[in-house]
Amino acid sequence: MGRRSDHSREELASLATEAARAIMVEQGVAQVSARAIAKRIGYSPGTLYNLFENIDAIVYQVNAATLRDLAMAAMAAVENQTRPLDRAIALGRAYVDFAEAQPRLWLSVFDFRPAAEGDSPACFEEAVTLLFTVVNDCLTPFFTAEQEALRAASGRVLWSGVHGISLLNVTGRLGQPDGMTAADMAELLIRNFIRGLEA
Amino acid sequence: MGRRSDHSREELASLATEAARAIMVEQGVAQVSARAIAKRIGYSPGTLYNLFENIDAIVYQVNAATLRDLAMAAMAAVENQTRPLDRAIALGRAYVDFAEAQPRLWLSVFDFRPAAEGDSPACFEEAVTLLFTVVNDCLTPFFTAEQEALRAASGRVLWSGVHGISLLNVTGRLGQPDGMTAADMAELLIRNFIRGLEA
Repeated sequence: MGRRSDHSREELASLATEAARAIMVEQGVAQVSARAIAKRIGYSPGTLYNLFENIDAIVYQVNAATLRDLAMAAMAAVENQTRPLDRAIALGRAYVDFAEAQPRLWLSVFDFRPAAEGDSPACFEEAVTLLFTVVNDCLTPFFTAEQEALRAASGRVLWSGVHGISLLNVTGRLGQPDGMTAADMAELLIRNFIRGLEA
Repeated sequence: MGRRSDHSREELASLATEAARAIMVEQGVAQVSARAIAKRIGYSPGTLYNLFENIDAIVYQVNAATLRDLAMAAMAAVENQTRPLDRAIALGRAYVDFAEAQPRLWLSVFDFRPAAEGDSPACFEEAVTLLFTVVNDCLTPFFTAEQEALRAASGRVLWSGVHGISLLNVTGRLGQPDGMTAADMAELLIRNFIRGLEA
């Protein structure tokens, strides 16, 4: 497994990120290591450290891409609806569906424990911000300009609630009521919460 | 670390369970092993296998006790309130507070991956049932007898939502809005959900 020179730096970085993603899809984020990535692409671990500051940086890139994909799927679902309540429900359902379709990639975003201390990189923070922009835009119609704090709090609460349903779902602990999917449960949560806001 | 004979079988089983609980409190459920428990109580791993079918059985005992403690804390909080909405809110706050006070024990209930396949033992299932009895009792006032299915679904949805807030809280990923605790977020979720049910 010696170093080869048939790829440019950019190609190598891209190969390494794809390999990390494949390991996350197949085995989960805990199995991502310099050795596992290097083995998969046929380079030495040392080559990776010439390209990336550390393995955390590779995982953050994959997780940022996952969050961007999730935000895109959510936006597409929201745009199919016109009524504010339907848009909020579509967002919740899209979140649950995305996690169900890509359980290990989605779990990797939340299960990842970086080896190095410090802030997460800008690419990841931007993806988080993108997702919460979709959430906040969906909730805007239910609040006045003076209720900005309540809107932000409601966005966090609804996201946490739908996230809980989604996490219990992909880890097999949801205990769905008869005839309901996890997405149906997210809909029940969002529908009643928003009805409560309006009441 | 040879086998000693200064404890009865019952005393040994109790020592082993206490040792497993201490490891879970200090290091988390992933660190519980026959070796770690045996080392802590000064017996050989073989002694443990004379007392328990496997290590899963010990962890399930601790997790069942944690769920019973959680159910008791929730019942005590609920009984301090008279209005149905206040009772439901007290339940949610007690759940979040319990997880915050005992994060590793609480996480162990959900993070535990038994080594052996099969159903969880009766002691654990009974503790789960106890907790959901508290949840369902709190929600009963908001539903008619004909709405039993909706009540059950609402119980699961609210629990999943509060669980999500609690999990993000103990793993440092909640991103609380200004001036709100995780328990305040659980209250906002429950209050609006129930208001929505009533609307």
